[in-house]
Amino acid sequence: MFRHQKELQYEVKVERPDPMLARRVQEVLGGQFGEMTVMMQYLFQGFNCRGEEKYKDMLMDIGTEEIGHVEMLCSLISQLLDGASPEDQAKAAKDPATAAIMGGIDPQHLLVSGLGGMPTNSNGVPWNGSYIVASGNLLADMRANLHAESQGRLQVARLYHMTKDEGVRATFRKMLARDRYHQYQWMAAIEELEEKNGVVVPATFPREAEEEAQTEAYEFWNLSEGEESGEGPWATGSAPDGTGDFVYVTKPVPKGQIPCPKIPSTVLHHDLDKKTK
Amino acid sequence: MFRHQKELQYEVKVERPDPMLARRVQEVLGGQFGEMTVMMQYLFQGFNCRGEEKYKDMLMDIGTEEIGHVEMLCSLISQLLDGASPEDQAKAAKDPATAAIMGGIDPQHLLVSGLGGMPTNSNGVPWNGSYIVASGNLLADMRANLHAESQGRLQVARLYHMTKDEGVRATFRKMLARDRYHQYQWMAAIEELEEKNGVVVPATFPREAEEEAQTEAYEFWNLSEGEESGEGPWATGSAPDGTGDFVYVTKPVPKGQIPCPKIPSTVLHHDLDKKTK
Amino acid sequence: MFRHQKELQYEVKVERPDPMLARRVQEVLGGQFGEMTVMMQYLFQGFNCRGEEKYKDMLMDIGTEEIGHVEMLCSLISQLLDGASPEDQAKAAKDPATAAIMGGIDPQHLLVSGLGGMPTNSNGVPWNGSYIVASGNLLADMRANLHAESQGRLQVARLYHMTKDEGVRATFRKMLARDRYHQYQWMAAIEELEEKNGVVVPATFPREAEEEAQTEAYEFWNLSEGEESGEGPWATGSAPDGTGDFVYVTKPVPKGQIPCPKIPSTVLHHDLDKKTK
Amino acid sequence: MFRHQKELQYEVKVERPDPMLARRVQEVLGGQFGEMTVMMQYLFQGFNCRGEEKYKDMLMDIGTEEIGHVEMLCSLISQLLDGASPEDQAKAAKDPATAAIMGGIDPQHLLVSGLGGMPTNSNGVPWNGSYIVASGNLLADMRANLHAESQGRLQVARLYHMTKDEGVRATFRKMLARDRYHQYQWMAAIEELEEKNGVVVPATFPREAEEEAQTEAYEFWNLSEGEESGEGPWATGSAPDGTGDFVYVTKPVPKGQIPCPKIPSTVLHHDLDKKTK
Amino acid sequence: MFRHQKELQYEVKVERPDPMLARRVQEVLGGQFGEMTVMMQYLFQGFNCRGEEKYKDMLMDIGTEEIGHVEMLCSLISQLLDGASPEDQAKAAKDPATAAIMGGIDPQHLLVSGLGGMPTNSNGVPWNGSYIVASGNLLADMRANLHAESQGRLQVARLYHMTKDEGVRATFRKMLARDRYHQYQWMAAIEELEEKNGVVVPATFPREAEEEAQTEAYEFWNLSEGEESGEGPWATGSAPDGTGDFVYVTKPVPKGQIPCPKIPSTVLHHDLDKKTK
Amino acid sequence: MFRHQKELQYEVKVERPDPMLARRVQEVLGGQFGEMTVMMQYLFQGFNCRGEEKYKDMLMDIGTEEIGHVEMLCSLISQLLDGASPEDQAKAAKDPATAAIMGGIDPQHLLVSGLGGMPTNSNGVPWNGSYIVASGNLLADMRANLHAESQGRLQVARLYHMTKDEGVRATFRKMLARDRYHQYQWMAAIEELEEKNGVVVPATFPREAEEEAQTEAYEFWNLSEGEESGEGPWATGSAPDGTGDFVYVTKPVPKGQIPCPKIPSTVLHHDLDKKTK
Repeated sequence: MFRHQKELQYEVKVERPDPMLARRVQEVLGGQFGEMTVMMQYLFQGFNCRGEEKYKDMLMDIGTEEIGHVEMLCSLISQLLDGASPEDQAKAAKDPATAAIMGGIDPQHLLVSGLGGMPTNSNGVPWNGSYIVASGNLLADMRANLHAESQGRLQVARLYHMTKDEGVRATFRKMLARDRYHQYQWMAAIEELEEKNGVVVPATFPREAEEEAQTEAYEFWNLSEGEESGEGPWATGSAPDGTGDFVYVTKPVPKGQIPCPKIPSTVLHHDLDKKTK
Repeated sequence: MFRHQKELQYEVKVERPDPMLARRVQEVLGGQFGEMTVMMQYLFQGFNCRGEEKYKDMLMDIGTEEIGHVEMLCSLISQLLDGASPEDQAKAAKDPATAAIMGGIDPQHLLVSGLGGMPTNSNGVPWNGSYIVASGNLLADMRANLHAESQGRLQVARLYHMTKDEGVRATFRKMLARDRYHQYQWMAAIEELEEKNGVVVPATFPREAEEEAQTEAYEFWNLSEGEESGEGPWATGSAPDGTGDFVYVTKPVPKGQIPCPKIPSTVLHHDLDKKTK
Repeated sequence: MFRHQKELQYEVKVERPDPMLARRVQEVLGGQFGEMTVMMQYLFQGFNCRGEEKYKDMLMDIGTEEIGHVEMLCSLISQLLDGASPEDQAKAAKDPATAAIMGGIDPQHLLVSGLGGMPTNSNGVPWNGSYIVASGNLLADMRANLHAESQGRLQVARLYHMTKDEGVRATFRKMLARDRYHQYQWMAAIEELEEKNGVVVPATFPREAEEEAQTEAYEFWNLSEGEESGEGPWATGSAPDGTGDFVYVTKPVPKGQIPCPKIPSTVLHHDLDKKTK
Repeated sequence: MFRHQKELQYEVKVERPDPMLARRVQEVLGGQFGEMTVMMQYLFQGFNCRGEEKYKDMLMDIGTEEIGHVEMLCSLISQLLDGASPEDQAKAAKDPATAAIMGGIDPQHLLVSGLGGMPTNSNGVPWNGSYIVASGNLLADMRANLHAESQGRLQVARLYHMTKDEGVRATFRKMLARDRYHQYQWMAAIEELEEKNGVVVPATFPREAEEEAQTEAYEFWNLSEGEESGEGPWATGSAPDGTGDFVYVTKPVPKGQIPCPKIPSTVLHHDLDKKTK
Repeated sequence: MFRHQKELQYEVKVERPDPMLARRVQEVLGGQFGEMTVMMQYLFQGFNCRGEEKYKDMLMDIGTEEIGHVEMLCSLISQLLDGASPEDQAKAAKDPATAAIMGGIDPQHLLVSGLGGMPTNSNGVPWNGSYIVASGNLLADMRANLHAESQGRLQVARLYHMTKDEGVRATFRKMLARDRYHQYQWMAAIEELEEKNGVVVPATFPREAEEEAQTEAYEFWNLSEGEESGEGPWATGSAPDGTGDFVYVTKPVPKGQIPCPKIPSTVLHHDLDKKTK
Repeated sequence: MFRHQKELQYEVKVERPDPMLARRVQEVLGGQFGEMTVMMQYLFQGFNCRGEEKYKDMLMDIGTEEIGHVEMLCSLISQLLDGASPEDQAKAAKDPATAAIMGGIDPQHLLVSGLGGMPTNSNGVPWNGSYIVASGNLLADMRANLHAESQGRLQVARLYHMTKDEGVRATFRKMLARDRYHQYQWMAAIEELEEKNGVVVPATFPREAEEEAQTEAYEFWNLSEGEESGEGPWATGSAPDGTGDFVYVTKPVPKGQIPCPKIPSTVLHHDLDKKTK
């Protein structure tokens, strides 16, 4: 069960409205790697966590924090939109310099949400459940989390340079710091899990079955022209878990058959039986 | 520019049709972490790669390999569907044991694709472009790639136990081995990049701006009941890059204001001016 | 079966083109609460209506009217787009004041539809079937209808202030009037149904089953800080149907257990058995 | 800012696994009117609420409660899935009676979530942001809320009859009771708002503009065959706000022109200039 | 403006319920090439048609007919679902033969629509606006229409073999006949347009610009192994409009450069400046 | 299996950046009829092709070519975006003439892709698998292909007039030429298939079943006002395959019943038994 406290986690005080920035901030609210994504991802991982108390507790801590980040961004967007009413726009339209940006605002901020944040990205595409992952495998999921925080921080860093508003920048700095911490957090958890189970997900696939495809687990196939790819650490040396050595296959040849699917039943109406040879 | 060779990368020979398994295999063809995802993800990352020849070449190698994996899975699904014609189903319906599974086949395999693989997941949801990421930041994107291969291998491992067909299993073993290699590959690349740039994405955000939010970058906020989360390596010790020490905030308090958005222009028709206090 | 008559339901005569407004009008054509939504919603409710002749007939009347509203909006958008050809835009680009708005036009109006209305909202997101509801329960569905007309009228009212074009405004006035009527219509239907069946949907759930959760049906849980929510009519007095009195639970405590899901089968590869305690 | 408490709001104790029911329960978790929808809808309405303290507080109370409902349903689904491992299914396949239902389980519950609840509906379609509404107009939004609770309760009532499991039914009874209360809650709020502002949304559209379309605001257009629709309270008597009397237009005629769009610029390549007359 | 008549275009009388078939019929109601698609496609093409009276009239005729086909399919699905209530299912569950199919029914037919047709396909994916096309170019759009009727008729032909119900089959026969006619209709229109304008869409692109890429307009590039593709009429002989002769390029070589994108501004945080060579 | 060659199929050299054009080019990369669509459509048709060697080979040739077109467009977009960094935009904002277009750029090109092409259309809507078709019926699918190339070429032709950049135009000319050839290619294939099988898809539906609906296969129903539609070749003369003569039904009357669905089981909670007559 959850509870809500009135204050925001950090202060959100915008110096002046900027409806075009409001649209861009939607990316980190309702985009693929926005706060809605990490919020729902950590909560679902936490709700579904089985038998790992400290992980479950940690997922619930951070998932609960992220609900508050959605709240902060809605507050930020509302403040940025305070100057986007149709009258403000009509006024702006007289000054070409400010008018120029008006073309870029999100029309739904006026028509649909009445100047509030929306569950959409910076192009108005609604957030959807396929942005998140909660697979039940802790190592796999924490790699998802480290990745989400990496993209999220990258996007906030890009946003940072799109405004000179010191109020907005202060909020972004807090978000950048939290995203830094959250990257640390998942790295630490990943390191612990990899030490226990090994680095390959999943760890529990039966070893005897793996043996039949031993070769394929260490080969790099050079399928594009040029051999620059042979210069990386993925092409020479040992696998990270020391179970084998990499092989750079310079001129790979296919090992399978030419596929030759059967002619299907006539009730599927492929019309093949009557076709040209 | 690309070229196609007739043979499959590995042999795909199904022993007997299994339309219900065909539906499940759709998950690793057209699902969130299926072969279409890694194919498009690596190709877009490769196409957009700027000034890093060995990375670009490597992305093109693996992206090109994955087009061939989509091809292999289409061949696998076609073979699994060979016994799914309406006549086969009518026959099956007389034997309750085999009839039982017929409810679970994907109706679109008959009606829409005429017994072929489709660009959809195991529930028929079409693959879409928001499954992939190509951000231009190499470290961020390679974390995405490591993660995608982790979920992909996990799903194939789960599929493996859903069939006793040795032909299908042989194909899955090749896929598991390749997914193992691809996990190694991204780990090796990530390690190299982290050594050069540091572990936090992005590495180039201006240090002086980071300083203002120094505290927030090392704190764990205990926002859910219980302190089990304090037992993990994310709560004590130093950050992975040694830039600071973690602080476990047992009883966190909000640091922001209570938000108080302005009453908007009447032309937005919030109707607030006439409402109850 | 349906028939089409050449005239529009109301006159649509735009004074001058305005491609940016055309984009915004898409919201009330193909958005969540646009005319496509009410058209498809009323038609599906009508097609699926069982055994209530006057309701079915009424649903078919209004559903059929709404097809004509889609037609009117396509005509409106076509007229607004008449000045959006690439030549017009090139000309406009020389005058900063008019150029300013060009950034905001929908690129698909040129590239995809060739200056016609599209089945998308103001951000170009395609209309989809999950915008509508037809549940088979008349009271539930008429609440959907009252709500859809409320949002629809709100959006048209907001649009009204974004243009000074008297032709466009005249069309909007007709739409506002129809949306006013349609709100009345659903209110009248709802009132009649509530009088017969009671106000809670569905009315027919077995009373004896309801009794076991009698308390929960009248309690307001104060789960966010502050008790301002206790000042509303939902916190004191009797339920609208007089079946009980509201209770404001100031300090609610959870009544359930701490969830503790089982460790699953190893073939699901949660990797839990080998993980840290 | 939010906090999490370990116990569930109500007890969730399933008597025996039922993976087919688990799939169906997804509808009220991640479907159009599931708990994710009301959770996100109330939170966004609360975050964006302007200047109405008691409403904002109330929205935050119920939005926060609904996060806990998502949590309860994830717990319910996990328990229902405990018997869905591939081994369990293989065993079940031998008994036709139990095998029969296996076709209906959601393949993603095994492959993707590893036996956990997902942010999808009962057909596996991901939840998306266009399920919710937060328009800034309180009366419009509370009609959305009353409607959502009506559909939600209807679906839970239908689910109730699909199981004999007393543990599941006990959870459903709590949900039915809360949905009953939440319907009361929105009715009470709606009544208060309608008394202040009038029943038509939005209330603040300028009266003089409305006058020009006075007739259209009270007419029912009989556009489908038959006059049964004339028997309802929407066809005779006065509007709910007493501002006018309904008129049943038995044989409506269109009032607009035959639309006649212009031939566009040749650079749009309509090819019209060369076409047949 | 539109009007509705009570009778269906053709009789729809199902002999006995079949909820699994109901799910499959959803494909031709709300799928990619279902009746909703052709209905919306023809209506949008008709609404947007500019200056071609006989085409516009014809599009409105057939678009209006297709609304009635949506109506017929909703009626068909309702009748097929009459035996899908939970009680019917419980009864069926005792007989393995009939129980077998129960796994395959669409859970939303019970939970969401209460036994009515839905705007979704056979996997429950909602219909969406990107299924349709209305480009303003008549020849392009009529090719879309011919194609849609081809896929639509193919799917109904496949459905035909999935039932022995003579009532259902009679409805399908009418649909197959109409789809046959509609294929004729678009062929006839296409032939007329091609004769006037030529066969390439669009016809009006400036000839002088085309000349610079004259070679590219007649070459077949053999980019996959094997030269079987050289045996088709696309590889030898003249173009259908006689403007040139086909050339089969057996060993094609790329004509472009190796792309070499610039290193971007540091504020985009590609982190390239600090990376490995 | 596939291989990649470093050079682009044709040269892509942009004279000067144009971020607004970059957004528009997204339509022909990741839109409904963009290069991603034809690439995936031809590959899936090729992978699933059964028993028609020359067709399969040809589909693989062109599918493989189209992967290279996606590559070319990514290169084009990258070059167009080189001037879209936040600094460039800040500079542009000072000159109203250039500032004017900045409102129209795709915010995700900066925030999400870091100046690279994306798998989305010109409004940022992600590409999805329902854009493509691969039905197994060759004639049906080749009509899809002819149509896709028609829309694709139309869109490129429209784009052509939106830039004066000779580098961009040279790329577009190559694309227009290839789209011209691809239209020829599908026409030639279609003609061959129609000669063998007849023009109606599918060709193999049992003739005796068709006979029962003979009338319906040749009638044009005049369901919209006016008889202009009677002037087209679809209304008079013989069907393209000479199997019958068209009949123009001036005043069509419905041939079906008035639908009258049954009252369903009470456990579906339609609440009908208690409702008003």
